[in-house]
Amino acid sequence: MIIVMKTEATEAQVLTIQKHIRELGFKDHLIKGVERSVIAVLGAVYPELIDEFAALDGVDSVVRVSKPFKLASREVKEDDTVVKVGPVEIGSGRLVTMAGPCSVDTEENMIETARAVKAAGAHLLRGGAFKPRTSPYAFRGHGEKGLKILAAARAETGLPIVTEVMDARDVEVVARFADILQIGSRNMQNFALLDEVGKAHMPVLLKRGMWATIEEWLLAAEYILSHGNRDVILCERGIRTHETATRFTFDVNAIPVIKRLSHLPIIGDPSHATGKWYLVPPIALSAVAAGVDGLIIEVHPNPDQALSDGAQSLTPANFEKLMDQVRTLAEAMGRPVAPPIDELEKAVKTS
Amino acid sequence: MIIVMKTEATEAQVLTIQKHIRELGFKDHLIKGVERSVIAVLGAVYPELIDEFAALDGVDSVVRVSKPFKLASREVKEDDTVVKVGPVEIGSGRLVTMAGPCSVDTEENMIETARAVKAAGAHLLRGGAFKPRTSPYAFRGHGEKGLKILAAARAETGLPIVTEVMDARDVEVVARFADILQIGSRNMQNFALLDEVGKAHMPVLLKRGMWATIEEWLLAAEYILSHGNRDVILCERGIRTHETATRFTFDVNAIPVIKRLSHLPIIGDPSHATGKWYLVPPIALSAVAAGVDGLIIEVHPNPDQALSDGAQSLTPANFEKLMDQVRTLAEAMGRPVAPPIDELEKAVKTS
Amino acid sequence: MIIVMKTEATEAQVLTIQKHIRELGFKDHLIKGVERSVIAVLGAVYPELIDEFAALDGVDSVVRVSKPFKLASREVKEDDTVVKVGPVEIGSGRLVTMAGPCSVDTEENMIETARAVKAAGAHLLRGGAFKPRTSPYAFRGHGEKGLKILAAARAETGLPIVTEVMDARDVEVVARFADILQIGSRNMQNFALLDEVGKAHMPVLLKRGMWATIEEWLLAAEYILSHGNRDVILCERGIRTHETATRFTFDVNAIPVIKRLSHLPIIGDPSHATGKWYLVPPIALSAVAAGVDGLIIEVHPNPDQALSDGAQSLTPANFEKLMDQVRTLAEAMGRPVAPPIDELEKAVKTS
Amino acid sequence: MIIVMKTEATEAQVLTIQKHIRELGFKDHLIKGVERSVIAVLGAVYPELIDEFAALDGVDSVVRVSKPFKLASREVKEDDTVVKVGPVEIGSGRLVTMAGPCSVDTEENMIETARAVKAAGAHLLRGGAFKPRTSPYAFRGHGEKGLKILAAARAETGLPIVTEVMDARDVEVVARFADILQIGSRNMQNFALLDEVGKAHMPVLLKRGMWATIEEWLLAAEYILSHGNRDVILCERGIRTHETATRFTFDVNAIPVIKRLSHLPIIGDPSHATGKWYLVPPIALSAVAAGVDGLIIEVHPNPDQALSDGAQSLTPANFEKLMDQVRTLAEAMGRPVAPPIDELEKAVKTS
Repeated sequence: MIIVMKTEATEAQVLTIQKHIRELGFKDHLIKGVERSVIAVLGAVYPELIDEFAALDGVDSVVRVSKPFKLASREVKEDDTVVKVGPVEIGSGRLVTMAGPCSVDTEENMIETARAVKAAGAHLLRGGAFKPRTSPYAFRGHGEKGLKILAAARAETGLPIVTEVMDARDVEVVARFADILQIGSRNMQNFALLDEVGKAHMPVLLKRGMWATIEEWLLAAEYILSHGNRDVILCERGIRTHETATRFTFDVNAIPVIKRLSHLPIIGDPSHATGKWYLVPPIALSAVAAGVDGLIIEVHPNPDQALSDGAQSLTPANFEKLMDQVRTLAEAMGRPVAPPIDELEKAVKTS
Repeated sequence: MIIVMKTEATEAQVLTIQKHIRELGFKDHLIKGVERSVIAVLGAVYPELIDEFAALDGVDSVVRVSKPFKLASREVKEDDTVVKVGPVEIGSGRLVTMAGPCSVDTEENMIETARAVKAAGAHLLRGGAFKPRTSPYAFRGHGEKGLKILAAARAETGLPIVTEVMDARDVEVVARFADILQIGSRNMQNFALLDEVGKAHMPVLLKRGMWATIEEWLLAAEYILSHGNRDVILCERGIRTHETATRFTFDVNAIPVIKRLSHLPIIGDPSHATGKWYLVPPIALSAVAAGVDGLIIEVHPNPDQALSDGAQSLTPANFEKLMDQVRTLAEAMGRPVAPPIDELEKAVKTS
Repeated sequence: MIIVMKTEATEAQVLTIQKHIRELGFKDHLIKGVERSVIAVLGAVYPELIDEFAALDGVDSVVRVSKPFKLASREVKEDDTVVKVGPVEIGSGRLVTMAGPCSVDTEENMIETARAVKAAGAHLLRGGAFKPRTSPYAFRGHGEKGLKILAAARAETGLPIVTEVMDARDVEVVARFADILQIGSRNMQNFALLDEVGKAHMPVLLKRGMWATIEEWLLAAEYILSHGNRDVILCERGIRTHETATRFTFDVNAIPVIKRLSHLPIIGDPSHATGKWYLVPPIALSAVAAGVDGLIIEVHPNPDQALSDGAQSLTPANFEKLMDQVRTLAEAMGRPVAPPIDELEKAVKTS
Repeated sequence: MIIVMKTEATEAQVLTIQKHIRELGFKDHLIKGVERSVIAVLGAVYPELIDEFAALDGVDSVVRVSKPFKLASREVKEDDTVVKVGPVEIGSGRLVTMAGPCSVDTEENMIETARAVKAAGAHLLRGGAFKPRTSPYAFRGHGEKGLKILAAARAETGLPIVTEVMDARDVEVVARFADILQIGSRNMQNFALLDEVGKAHMPVLLKRGMWATIEEWLLAAEYILSHGNRDVILCERGIRTHETATRFTFDVNAIPVIKRLSHLPIIGDPSHATGKWYLVPPIALSAVAAGVDGLIIEVHPNPDQALSDGAQSLTPANFEKLMDQVRTLAEAMGRPVAPPIDELEKAVKTS
């Protein structure tokens, strides 16, 4: 931590701060510059100290030097984390795809979709049983009934399930059915929920808050990691900006930044990041080119009859076409798409 | 709802959409323009229809005409809502102030602060027992112990308490001690929590999400209102923008916009909106000038020893000075500060 | 400047950087921390060094310690700059108002508006002869003819004129007619234009770019100041954010931040910051409460026949009402509105 | 244009508006809804009408139906515009690359860089002779001397030149040396400059303003097009958002949105969009995957000695590596990189 003094700070103010640093058990180091003095603070500084020192007389600003996240940091763990979900590995260098409808509707539709996305090469099935909705009057999901429909589709196809949990009280029931617990964008800083999924013994997909900096996102992951759950997958799903032509702005920059700062796998969600089905393919491809470990994509057999987010869902036919493009692109980049789920399953059994 | 067709849309596409509108039980109205056709949809349209129609062939865009929030809307309830908290009325045309530390620390400190803010004219005591923290390693509040300390300070001073609840499971315990349940910025779209405080029979202070549009904020209020709890107080606390000189940007525009769109009272939080104690007074005054019904301000006897947010806390002396300025300004604007709590209490008893 | 090394930086990398610092003529100062080393660079560092060092091997980040603006800084000039425009002083502690239509239309209308705003107590007349328009098909102003109409209105009323210059080539002609040269938001980083008005010997009103940080804004002022023109007035006119309910977000926080960082006067533009006439009065009052030195407000006798920005213009009657409120508020805050222009004129003559 | 009335609007207010519409020469069409009335306005509506009607009594909001840009719109010109620069075609389906230093420094360096980027396969040479700089104290380019150095490098290598013009007065001199006139991000709404390059008979590279919506960007292009200059190339270079880990946020969504709305070619600038050289390759690849027609990339032989933006410049070796990846990716996507400049030149001659 570096404390930058005001140009007009007095020597007495500098001394007071040095004394305070030592009282707190840290070492101080004074550097007199041309315009002003700065004081380096040495030791295991915690985030709150910044605010504390910034409030002192004579201080202009306080600059943090070390990163506030630890377990999520590549400085602490150098090699990539690989999250295993049944026979699927996320973060292993082979691209993984998750697909399915925004909301679970009927069992019939869900099984139809599951079969279609599996046929196109998807590795996991997505679908919302508990839905966060901006308006209280919108459809909010079928709850446990929806989870059972998802489980039926998994039984039918072998695809593991990723589904959202919105309430700390529901972690237990969702965990009973799901293979990956999804934390939605609006809950990225629902700390009670982060604590609860941190205690669950299963993978967590942590979507970025639409307002969050990359640092805040990694600190949200740190909440989960700090409970001993190391199976965190990050998901870039678009941030809120001034642009109104798209629902959100897909922050493609975040992908290589995360790869540099953290060992955690990261996937891209082009459906929510754009809000428009015809923008999903180019943005999915851009995410792959930028280095994601996977994609999560909304697919619905009849987008215009979907219970939510129909406008951003691909038809199975369009998803199949996209998967072909993704395969070609991923192959060309030397990070191929993982083999189909049945082959992965077989490989696990024979090994 | 207005459906704008593409310039190149065919007559068949227009007909398909008209048919679909009628199947759903709405009336349609076709207008042929110079460049393109638009179709008006008449009836009680629900938000999801927008996505549904936007996905259809030939559609350029879909425009909503009616507001998605109802109970929060001034179109539905014309006169201002007044929320009563003990003898205090919020939204009555007399300005109300809430003050206290960010986090509850010791009972001694809390009582000292409570006395100081009461002496300066504050009407409610704020303090966090459950604290949302960006980092899992920061101090997260004393929990129920903190609530008891707040209750002790209320017993001592008569000031009602506003304190945050972060977890749907804690609503019951917080409700037992608090007079107003506070929903923090990061939880503005924690729908499980909104549902739960909607069911509580007590006032709720709903802070704006730092990413939220005014419409999303009013929809979050609608969640609470839709459960029959009509005592919602809105709180503008700054939005996230590109500016880095301040922690957030206080959206002062939102105050008159809310007053126009909604009957709910709105207060301002200059402490979080700026992140710096020396910016709190001017921003508090600007909020009053723009028409807020109250202020919530962080005050701590020793800001540099505060367990959180020390940098944005006023000393009791600075708070007293600010209250004098607020009184003068509010008086001049014809919306005076409410009398001290003891007088309000007496007035209630004698009435 | 502080160079923060990566945790895994080698001693050789640290040495290379120290050598480079000395070669450039600066002093270095190494501090070995628990996790990593940091190197302080002492001397008159220039902004580009940050990029230069950030690109070197082993460097994690580079932190600037001193402010990049000098002449605009309160550290360099402690007391407030007062800009004189005829008999009017901006920044003297007495609030000044500028009012008039967005675009100059007919001489008749302009003189009518000038008389009306003067009667209400305005000190300067605003009006656009050269108009920046988002669309090439919108009305772009009457140019020199408009300047002449403004001059006629000044002759009639004695109100000095503030009007926009958009092109470095027009500085000479606009300067011939105007009393203050206005730089619009979209031109805040039109450096050729900044240079040109820096060379003009007259006051400049510098609107904040809707994208600009406060630091970039002060650096734009620095451009003008660095040419020897010290008469710069800043104008907060709203920044672009995610909120769509208003045209821009009035950054009221910026007012006290500017007052702390700079000696330059600052005024508020509630008309552009909101885009809606009914939001202008509350935001004007909030700006006054936050400490502006003046206001600039759009007034048009027939807003619905205005050639541009009718939706955000006040009628003369509404402006008069607002001026009454501003006077009351400013008086209460101990920073009264300056006397009417005729009195100021008289005071100058008799002194 | 659709005028949405307030729920409480009177019949008289509706009639007044209908009358006003007809007076202006348009047709009106009244639709009475469940909650409120809306009035469709038929005819060649111009943008200012929105403000005009929004200000009328009883009006809630006004919704535009047609797009405000015309010449830039795909509705007006369906097939892709191909911009020819010497033997290079931009927008033809074959990817084009522009590379070179941020600022022109010495002729020796420039020729070295030109040779290096040509050897790696670049098709155009970029370099700044006139540099927009946030601080007046930073290096602002060599001006005409820099243009001559660029011309020398073109003579040596055959690479056409793209270079920025910042001032309407410099268009003539820059046009004498350059093959493409570049409009920088900060000048996207410098309308005087847009008019001037619109009158020049040569290609213009229009960078997106960091604050601009896609619609405003296309309207800026419309300025140039409306003067008869049809050779406009758009360039996405990152928008300003709340994220601080990168200098800007590369709006990859904008690429397919532009492709849908407009016939103009679009290229990506990963150097400015990220501000960090190690993020340039993944973002360049993501732009290609999203469908750009070209890339513009900063390359400098010694990034840590660059006169500006060293931190975001690739070394020639890194650029060569990136070009290999781009070629592989573009090939895989069926939109290959254009052949080297010498081959293009030869093809032109033999045809």
